Amino acid sequence: MFGVSSLSTVSVEEINSLIDTPKMFQFYFHKDRGLNSNMLQRAKAENFDVLALTVDTITGGNRERDLRTGFTIPPKMNIYSIADFLIKPLWTINYLTHKKFDLPHLQEYVDEGTNVFTSIGSYFSTMLDQSMNWDDAEKLCSEWNGHFALKGIMSVEDAKRAVDIGCTGIMVSNHGGRQLDGSRSPFDQLAEIVDAVGDKIDVICEGGIQRGTHILKALSLGAKACSAGRLYLYALAAAGQAGVERALSQIRNEIERDMKLMGCDNVNQLSRKNLRFR
Amino acid sequence: MFGVSSLSTVSVEEINSLIDTPKMFQFYFHKDRGLNSNMLQRAKAENFDVLALTVDTITGGNRERDLRTGFTIPPKMNIYSIADFLIKPLWTINYLTHKKFDLPHLQEYVDEGTNVFTSIGSYFSTMLDQSMNWDDAEKLCSEWNGHFALKGIMSVEDAKRAVDIGCTGIMVSNHGGRQLDGSRSPFDQLAEIVDAVGDKIDVICEGGIQRGTHILKALSLGAKACSAGRLYLYALAAAGQAGVERALSQIRNEIERDMKLMGCDNVNQLSRKNLRFR
Amino acid sequence: MFGVSSLSTVSVEEINSLIDTPKMFQFYFHKDRGLNSNMLQRAKAENFDVLALTVDTITGGNRERDLRTGFTIPPKMNIYSIADFLIKPLWTINYLTHKKFDLPHLQEYVDEGTNVFTSIGSYFSTMLDQSMNWDDAEKLCSEWNGHFALKGIMSVEDAKRAVDIGCTGIMVSNHGGRQLDGSRSPFDQLAEIVDAVGDKIDVICEGGIQRGTHILKALSLGAKACSAGRLYLYALAAAGQAGVERALSQIRNEIERDMKLMGCDNVNQLSRKNLRFR
Amino acid sequence: MFGVSSLSTVSVEEINSLIDTPKMFQFYFHKDRGLNSNMLQRAKAENFDVLALTVDTITGGNRERDLRTGFTIPPKMNIYSIADFLIKPLWTINYLTHKKFDLPHLQEYVDEGTNVFTSIGSYFSTMLDQSMNWDDAEKLCSEWNGHFALKGIMSVEDAKRAVDIGCTGIMVSNHGGRQLDGSRSPFDQLAEIVDAVGDKIDVICEGGIQRGTHILKALSLGAKACSAGRLYLYALAAAGQAGVERALSQIRNEIERDMKLMGCDNVNQLSRKNLRFR
Repeated sequence: MFGVSSLSTVSVEEINSLIDTPKMFQFYFHKDRGLNSNMLQRAKAENFDVLALTVDTITGGNRERDLRTGFTIPPKMNIYSIADFLIKPLWTINYLTHKKFDLPHLQEYVDEGTNVFTSIGSYFSTMLDQSMNWDDAEKLCSEWNGHFALKGIMSVEDAKRAVDIGCTGIMVSNHGGRQLDGSRSPFDQLAEIVDAVGDKIDVICEGGIQRGTHILKALSLGAKACSAGRLYLYALAAAGQAGVERALSQIRNEIERDMKLMGCDNVNQLSRKNLRFR
Repeated sequence: MFGVSSLSTVSVEEINSLIDTPKMFQFYFHKDRGLNSNMLQRAKAENFDVLALTVDTITGGNRERDLRTGFTIPPKMNIYSIADFLIKPLWTINYLTHKKFDLPHLQEYVDEGTNVFTSIGSYFSTMLDQSMNWDDAEKLCSEWNGHFALKGIMSVEDAKRAVDIGCTGIMVSNHGGRQLDGSRSPFDQLAEIVDAVGDKIDVICEGGIQRGTHILKALSLGAKACSAGRLYLYALAAAGQAGVERALSQIRNEIERDMKLMGCDNVNQLSRKNLRFR
Repeated sequence: MFGVSSLSTVSVEEINSLIDTPKMFQFYFHKDRGLNSNMLQRAKAENFDVLALTVDTITGGNRERDLRTGFTIPPKMNIYSIADFLIKPLWTINYLTHKKFDLPHLQEYVDEGTNVFTSIGSYFSTMLDQSMNWDDAEKLCSEWNGHFALKGIMSVEDAKRAVDIGCTGIMVSNHGGRQLDGSRSPFDQLAEIVDAVGDKIDVICEGGIQRGTHILKALSLGAKACSAGRLYLYALAAAGQAGVERALSQIRNEIERDMKLMGCDNVNQLSRKNLRFR
Repeated sequence: MFGVSSLSTVSVEEINSLIDTPKMFQFYFHKDRGLNSNMLQRAKAENFDVLALTVDTITGGNRERDLRTGFTIPPKMNIYSIADFLIKPLWTINYLTHKKFDLPHLQEYVDEGTNVFTSIGSYFSTMLDQSMNWDDAEKLCSEWNGHFALKGIMSVEDAKRAVDIGCTGIMVSNHGGRQLDGSRSPFDQLAEIVDAVGDKIDVICEGGIQRGTHILKALSLGAKACSAGRLYLYALAAAGQAGVERALSQIRNEIERDMKLMGCDNVNQLSRKNLRFR
């Protein structure tokens, strides 16, 4: 299943015209309720199968590395980033010659022109609704009226509440480790969350999935599936479509090979007996 | 709350004339009971809110790094410290052109002129009362007759005794790790001390506080507040008042951001559920 | 006891003509049942004492280091492997002047000439029977009708089943750590397997045995014996027969010396009291 | 208390003429019972207070580093040791101009001249009695008829047996970690041995004692005293008598300072409450 977010550079309409496979829309909850409704309706109209409400990004993380490297939109120049651009001239050429990024789900709702954000941080503080609460999530769930997940659950308590408000799934995630400094890894939280709600809703493990073995471990713990971003994005940045296809085929090969080596021929045979913690 | 010590270079009178915010006086117990009384009365006269008796420095620590680098008063010259001064000529200029340090709380009580101490070590062995005991602490507490803390508690046993002698707070601290080699960190001792006396007196966590997350962790364990020295002193040394303001605003921002990300809007919601030990 | 595998470069006949000491034949289970029977009969005819069925290699491992270094048959040239050959010209001379490897147990059963395999991986996928199951193992055990071991057991469950199908031994092994990425070490699994089946069959510990102390530790845990490959192969590659003899004498010396130092004069005195885990 | 061994380069007679403080003789058990008796009688005649029978060196350890560096008697020259001698010409001069080492307790019992041993290893295998057993130890203990210790106990079982044969002390030691590869440190074994026999005999902790804190930790666990070799030998090699005096005064200062900082004024107040294991 492929997912795009409210902040995607490709619209839900374009995606629906391109692929027939299952689709997830990753929803950010904005102050502007008209924008929220608009996005929800567009995703529904384009046959998205799942709506995942992002709940771990009520405010942006303090990404200190980005502050040092000047990795903002537009890029902030400092001695290191200029050196990077000089060493890799194709970056600069691509940056200057390619179509500027659009954010098609948001562009009618921001006043300041196309290239609107000075930084991710200012987007989060200006447009997102930091007072979003469980009632908002419940209403959105009922408005969507289909498969609905909370993305960013890290505790048993919140997982149970997700069941209570009608979710059909949760994504155990800490937003790639870029939000709350010192948070545990989603995998560390997985077993107890599966124990609490695994029989009621789908528990998806996200965060750090880079290999087939990572998926086998998460499934062995009881996750229903895994979700990954950097896994395909790094491949995409390095080698385009061919890179993504190669990354995915390596994942598939590793899962198949290692299941053979574990003596399993069905994912149902994966269990905690495969794992030892230390 | 700002704290100054018996060894401060600025007097309690000057501090009281400069700030209206709460003030703590960090008391060292001297052989000379006249000096002790004099300091206590001056601090009381200047409206200091808390007296904190230092109990982890009955003798100076064996700071082996200082012995190697020649970091004493006055500086001891060796090949490394001379090289340091040559590389950073502003240090030398500042050292030579600025007013010499005074120790205004002590200066009437030492005979040998203004620049009296050859080393911290000799101060501790010459002037401090190494036989200070619980009775002395109890008398000082009753003489102060206000908020009184022991600074340097590291065990449940001593924390309970602090309650018994009438303290209203304790500072869990190992004096920045510079005294007893091999001592545990204050944070390691915090939970059991909070469990023992947290409902009777204020437990302050000191030692290694460098970030907002450190404070959130200590509060989650049950500390009432945190105390930090190097946090603002490094910033002060690097960039003066602006540096301190920046350090403090970073701490505040991190606390606010991370509480949002933890789904808390009040420090009362911080609890041990936020923490996992390994 | 010396063991050779189905993939050995020396035939069971030649080995039997060379040595009188106990011999083990390491059996790979092929799709071609005629090949399986042929190998079994040859090993029996040459008085091999033990048949060990390899059960941890139903498919080849994904040996990523080999993919990078070009370590395949025949060697794949890349900039690093060419550099290696240039630095060590004797390798190249040996490779070109020595008799090409034969695989005498397999050569009548492959069509494509003498130098048949492009890679270990293609051998595994083309010739081995990936559907081998417990029934196949049980039939082979009964057909052999002598000491029979499963090589590659890593769980209590499988160890018990080995007893059930009539094995007289198991080799606790993960094939040198080259098959299933993230598998535990055999030594880590040894205690519980010995506890489950140690009184019914011989439990052999294989994997990472490089020193006498490794053997003493495995015996102390309850292994009946140890098995090692790289231990003598590295010595063989470095210094031929003299190297192997030196490696073996070092092992013997270390076992003898350390048993004296432990106050033991018989391996029966080795027990778990000698070990502490952390 | 100062200890010398059977292998010392200074005789018990000379030591008794030089010092009045308590003396321990570290006894090695030889095949030649006449040599054993002779040493025992000489130590008794010179008023040695304690006889400590070495029980962890029934054979020499396999000191692989020594084999590589050529550190044997006489020194074995290889490229590294020659380089060492060239860099430090005083070593060579000292070695050539100083009186050759004698081994005064052994010299009448070896035939081959003064400079007898090609290596420690050959001494152990040629002269020591590798069949020494508990009966031998018991007889020696009764023959000595005074304070008698086993040096090299590492288990509760052996500590109890030491009590049974009449020892008044044991030295928990693994001979500086140079004998049995992979042995635990004596400190790791100390608590359980103290629990088993600490009320019946003196338990001395030896091995890795380099600082005052090490002694405080061992005493806190229940050791009666500590024993150290390299502590004073490194200082002796570096700076002669002045070095040893400085090393000992640093130890004393650290013990005194840290007891003050721990709030103790008597070693009896040291207890396991001071320690946390992790």
